[in-house]
Parts: sequence; C-alpha cells; structure tokens
Amino acid sequence: MEYTDGKWKKNSTDWDELMSTSLLDREAVIEGAVHSIRNMGDVAFIILRKREGLFQTVLENKIPDCSVHQLKEAMTVQVKGILKKEERAPHGRELRITGVKILSFPVESMPLAIDKWKLNTSLESKLNMRSVALRNIRERSKFRIQEALVRAFRDYLYEHGFTEIHTPKLGARGAEGGANVFKLSYFHKPAVLAQSPQFYKQMMVGVFDRVFETGPVFRAEKHNTKRHLNEYTSLDLEMGYIDSFQEIMSMETGYLQYAMALLKKSYDKELSLLKLELPNVDRIPAVQFEKAKELVSEKYNRPVRNPYDLEPEEEALIGRYFKEEYNSDFVFVTHYPSKKRPFYAMDDPADPRFTLSFDLLFRGLEVTTGGQRIHDYQQLTAKIADRGMEEEGMEQYLDAFKHGMPPHGGLGIGLERLTMQLLGEENVREACLFPRDMNRLEP
Amino acid sequence: MEYTDGKWKKNSTDWDELMSTSLLDREAVIEGAVHSIRNMGDVAFIILRKREGLFQTVLENKIPDCSVHQLKEAMTVQVKGILKKEERAPHGRELRITGVKILSFPVESMPLAIDKWKLNTSLESKLNMRSVALRNIRERSKFRIQEALVRAFRDYLYEHGFTEIHTPKLGARGAEGGANVFKLSYFHKPAVLAQSPQFYKQMMVGVFDRVFETGPVFRAEKHNTKRHLNEYTSLDLEMGYIDSFQEIMSMETGYLQYAMALLKKSYDKELSLLKLELPNVDRIPAVQFEKAKELVSEKYNRPVRNPYDLEPEEEALIGRYFKEEYNSDFVFVTHYPSKKRPFYAMDDPADPRFTLSFDLLFRGLEVTTGGQRIHDYQQLTAKIADRGMEEEGMEQYLDAFKHGMPPHGGLGIGLERLTMQLLGEENVREACLFPRDMNRLEP
Repeated sequence: MEYTDGKWKKNSTDWDELMSTSLLDREAVIEGAVHSIRNMGDVAFIILRKREGLFQTVLENKIPDCSVHQLKEAMTVQVKGILKKEERAPHGRELRITGVKILSFPVESMPLAIDKWKLNTSLESKLNMRSVALRNIRERSKFRIQEALVRAFRDYLYEHGFTEIHTPKLGARGAEGGANVFKLSYFHKPAVLAQSPQFYKQMMVGVFDRVFETGPVFRAEKHNTKRHLNEYTSLDLEMGYIDSFQEIMSMETGYLQYAMALLKKSYDKELSLLKLELPNVDRIPAVQFEKAKELVSEKYNRPVRNPYDLEPEEEALIGRYFKEEYNSDFVFVTHYPSKKRPFYAMDDPADPRFTLSFDLLFRGLEVTTGGQRIHDYQQLTAKIADRGMEEEGMEQYLDAFKHGMPPHGGLGIGLERLTMQLLGEENVREACLFPRDMNRLEP
Repeated sequence: MEYTDGKWKKNSTDWDELMSTSLLDREAVIEGAVHSIRNMGDVAFIILRKREGLFQTVLENKIPDCSVHQLKEAMTVQVKGILKKEERAPHGRELRITGVKILSFPVESMPLAIDKWKLNTSLESKLNMRSVALRNIRERSKFRIQEALVRAFRDYLYEHGFTEIHTPKLGARGAEGGANVFKLSYFHKPAVLAQSPQFYKQMMVGVFDRVFETGPVFRAEKHNTKRHLNEYTSLDLEMGYIDSFQEIMSMETGYLQYAMALLKKSYDKELSLLKLELPNVDRIPAVQFEKAKELVSEKYNRPVRNPYDLEPEEEALIGRYFKEEYNSDFVFVTHYPSKKRPFYAMDDPADPRFTLSFDLLFRGLEVTTGGQRIHDYQQLTAKIADRGMEEEGMEQYLDAFKHGMPPHGGLGIGLERLTMQLLGEENVREACLFPRDMNRLEP
C-alpha cells in the first residue's frame, strides 16, 4: 500500500535555503517565472519571479544545450546552478546556471510590462488583464498587505474569546430590507443575497457571546464611485455583555494595533516594496457626530447641508481636521442620528434622537460602521412598529430576543476600503482582486 | 478630546481569573445567561452559561432584594458574590451570590430544554429554532470544532507560503458551466453565483504561486440528501511548481495533522464535551480508482455498476475496507476517469483515460476533490475543443495560460462534510449553522 505522510521533499531548493550561507558555492535548483531577461552578450541575467520575491540568475552563453535565445519572458522554468555571492544582485546572491528545464511556454508576448517598477497602465486595463497585471511585484504586494489585515482580525479575535462563524449568503430576505438587495430565484422561491451577516451574528451572540465572520457581502447599490463595490469582503464582529458601546470601539482599536504589529513583524518585505508608512494607532480620538459637523463647518467655513448624515466631502474634512489638530489618521465619529441608523440600533437613553453608534474614519473615509444593538425584545418590536416595518420574515431573528439576549453590539469593516486607505490608493478597485461594480462582472 | 486606546477594563471578572486560586474567598462579578435553576428551598443553584462553559452560582434565600423567584431561565444577568472552593461544582468552585443585576428578560419560556445533556429534538426543530437550539452546550461545541478546522487550514497554509485570496461570488459565468448554477440579474445583466473559486485560484497561482481561500460556494443541485447542501463553505487551495499531484495530497495530509494537533492543544474542552476521538492521520493510504472499485467489489461481493464514478454506497465500502484492512479513517482514491473530471483536469500521460486527480474519503464519505490541472495553453484549449465546449466567457481565464502558467494543482474541501465526519454526525445539516437546502432558506 502506498501512503502519504505529509512530509513532501521538494525537488527544488526553498527560499530560506537560498538566503542562507550554507548553500553558497554549492548547487541549487530554483523554480520560477521568467520575470525579465537582460542579455549582455556574453552573459544574460534572467530574473526569476517567485512568491517570495525576485531572484537573479545568470546564464553564460557558452553553456551547452541552453541558450538565452530559448528563453522568453513569462516562461516558467526550473534552473540548476551554483549559488554565488554577488553584492550587486538583490539579496546579495545569484545563481550561475548550469542547466535549464522549461516547465511551460507562453504563446503570446506580454500585454503589459509587468517587470517595470510601476505599471503605467490605466486602472481599466489593469482590471481587464488582472491575471497578468498582478504579476507586477508591487501590484501583488498590495494583496499581501490585505492578507495581513484579515489575518490579524481573526487572530486578534481568537485571542479575545470570539468564535468564528459562517453564515448563509442566500436567504429569504435581507437584514436591512430595502431596495439594495440582489434578488434571485432559489428553486422557484424568491431569495436574496446577504447585504450583511447582521441578523445571524446577533443571533449567534446568544450562543457564543462573541462571534466574528470574514466573508462576502452583496449590495445592489446604484453607486459608481471610487469608494463603492457591489460585492466586498466584510470583517464582522459582534460581542455580548458589553459594558458600553465604547467597548466595541476599544476592541477595534486593539485590532488595528495588532494588525500594524503583524504587518511590521511578518510583512516587512511588502511594506518596504510599497514604501508604506503605517499609521499610529496607539490611541484614536472620538468625537460626537454633531460636534464633528460643527468643527469642520467652522474651521473650513462650510455650511452644514444635511444634519442627519455625513457627506463624503464632510468625512474627508473631518479626517483632515483630526490629522491637522491631533495628528491622527483615524477618528471615531459617535452618536449618529437615529433616523439614519437601522432599526436595531440602540438609541442613546440620554438623547434618543441619537444612537449609541459609531463610524471609524481612516484618512477621511468611513471604513467601519458599528454600535450597540437593542437587546430587549419589547423595545425592538416597538421600534419596528414605530418605523412602520413588518416583522414578517424576521420571526427567527426576533425569536432569539424572545428567549433572552445579552446587551451587545458589533461592527463591520470594509476590507477593501481599509486596504485602500492604508495603501493610499485613490480607488477601492485597486484594493480588490476582482472588483464588482455596476459595469464590471468580469473577469 | 476623548481617546480610545484599546485597553478596555471590563466591569466583570474574566474566566481565567475565576479559574485561578487568587480570587478564592474574594469578590467576583460574573455575567452570563441563566442556563438552569435548581431551587432546593434554602438555596438555589443558578447555573450560568458563558462562552467558556457553565458556571455554578448559589443564591441563599435570605439575601435582601434578590430572590430566586425573580430569576428565570434565559435571563441574562450580572451577579456579584464571593468565589468559593466547592469540590462538587464543575471546575471545583462556585460563586455565593450577594447581588444580582438583571441585564435582560425573556418574554416566553424556552421552546427546547437546552440545559439537557442531549437535545432530544428532531433535526427539523433544531434547525427551525436554531438560535435557541445552539445554546445547548454540546450543540455549540460542534461549531467550535468546526472553527478549529478552518483556523488550522489557514494557519498551516500561511506557514507554507500560501497567500489568502478573496474572489468574487458574482460572475458572468460559472467555473464549470452546466446547469447547477444559481442565476440572477445583475444590473440587468445575467449573472451567476460561484460554484467554486476554481478559475480565480488558478489565475492567482500565476501571481502568488500558492493561494488559498475559505468562503461560500453555491450549487443549484437538485439533491436532497444527508450529504448535500446548496450553499457550503469550501476550503480551497491551489499551488504552483508542484513536483507531482501527490504533492497536493501531501499538503492535505500535513493540514490534517496540523488540524488534529490544534484540536488537541486548544479545543480540549470541546473534545471532551463531545467525547470525540480524533482519527490518526500520521499517514493516509492511497489507492487507484479502478483498484478501489475492484477491492470492494471482491471483498463485499458487489457488482461494479458504473465504471466511471463512485456511487455513495461504494465510497462507504471503500471507507470500510480501509478501516478494516489498514485501520485508517482516511483514504485517497486517485486517478479518476477523465470522463468524470472537468476539462481542466490533467490527464495521466501514462494512460489518458484517467486523470492525475484524487478524492479524499473520510469514513467513507468524499470530503475533498483535487488534482493536477493542465497548465499548457494549447493542451487546455484542445481539451476544451475536444469536449465541444466554447471558450466564450473563459477568455480571461485562458489569458493567464497564454502568458505562462506553472505546473499546478489544488483541492477543495467541503468544510461541513469534514466537520460532520469528524463529529460522527449522520446529516451534514448538523454541521452547518444555518443550512441551505432545496427546501430551506430560513432562518
């Protein structure tokens, strides 16, 4: 009987070995994609792209059975050779090739110069040729940064007693109702795609006390802006037995601190490739909604047009204000008007025109919405009735409250927006592998 | 200015403190849901349910302003009292209550006896009353086990140089085409829900070499069995520069070893609650498809009906065979017939009627499908043509191959099936928080 024991011995040399000194002047085998070829006549420099980075190999034109003319960009190859110290090469070493095995051939020349430091290509072209454009090492680095943000979210929450949940994206109705849901037919029954895991995560607070989910959400919003996607990844958490809604803000601050620390520790290669400076998140200022409006109206001499919501320009100004006045890239705006928050938001007992809620702005863009929820059944059903909403379709959500729910609250972070702001990108599509907007369903 | 610094000091005592000796005979504050009340006359035992487990508190009937008659199951409370050693209580301690603050009131009595050791309720009722049924501590433990399986998948793959990706669930067409896709209208354009991240993860192998995703997939299959869900969580990986398709099997074996180790280390509470014995995954036998068919046909005297696929009963018998003959709960079945594998599967050069592919059976149920993919553009387009398929809608997938792809392969694990088999459940719905099947879209 053949067995698999989980201990695969690769035919090729791994990156850590390549970087160690033990292999210098000895033979190594490297696999990778031909990122670029610089033919100098006597020798050619073949730069290989590996997941860990670029690696320089050198081919002398006298090697039998292997000529630089056989090689092409975008081939994938396995090269054998002697690992040599070379101060001028990246990582201070290079491989002097003794043999090349071609693993695959491209059939067309590259449509984009991915070996350039910066891809000088329109966003539209980059998105249309996503699988090629992302081979540029700066482009792909952005998604390693994104990985760190999700990974930190989960690891931080595991450490704080949260349970990870997976809730359905197909349902009989949306959490917030309204027009912004994608509808479909589910075995001849009407169904919708989840706009958020809101109801499910609340129900699960009654079970696990603290839960989180990282998954896609779908919004049929007819916005075609630089800040909107119609499908995005939401980092959601919900926690029970909170002392106040500020405890949720504290949890988010702790997460951001953890994320920055993880980036520094394990993603230094990407940080330096992108020349990213991480924001200081030791402490994040918090300001009430009305106060924030007032502050920017005064300082920037801008009339308040909509007293119930923040316009994008106002968010940007609040971000600017807190950068200028408090040198902070982040600011919590708290106590949003009840009118503009969903029915399950807890009104502030001190002034029920406002809610115990917050948004987190990062460099002037909302990246999180959160707050305390109503946990009392009667209070919840009264608010549903007050708003002229129906309980129909929410029976099982309401059941959780009928049978006792702790005081709780939570938040949802838009992963792509968080990534975009950290990267300093102008368009959220830059921070999404395969963005979906009103005009884009492919690739 | 107010600031949030991420260092919230809870009003209540945390579990680790409760379990330590430092707080014995001192005051503690505990929050939780009233799981059960046992009124003995002079004293009442109030068992609180917290995320970490059950905790015993004791209320003497002489305490002023607080009587057991005010308390009800499913209330959430904050109790103050003195922590005492008590050998007969779980964890060897209890809280002698000096004060009770009620945080929330249920409005109806519990529809299920969740404080019973086993919920003696039909699956249908459990699913209809999900938010209540899962409050049973054995029920909820199952999803902690599930958490460990996903967490281990990610952590193991991070360690092995994989990048986590998030690919769209809305697209212009399905990866495998065919009838099993949910269709919807996306801003007046036809769209489908992703059956798998197959195309995307392959495209991203050209970028990151190794990628994984954990997310929902949607199958409009008209199966209503104990093994099928129409939406499930798929653990997907795809890796480039593989030496052979067995390297993928090795990666999965390594993952399973890692998962079992994580369960033992960090989920011992749940393992003992559920009395789970973990399978041995030191090594996993592998058998070729045709050989497997032959072995069970001989041993169990069962005629081979379908030479191209495994019937569920046959899978169960293969599982039984490898348990009986090799004492293994797992078996890799390799070299599935080309006919039954998708177009992108790599045929075996030694015998192109078969593919370099595998399924992993766990206790007789398929929990994984994987294999090597075609990486050569011409070979891929030839196979598409051979099958009478159209390239239309696959242009951007094929672009990745046009511009060079390394040899690669991957797999997809059905999280709920893996959980189900580990738990010894009969129905996959037991291993899903909110299952979706042909008849169920709620809760």
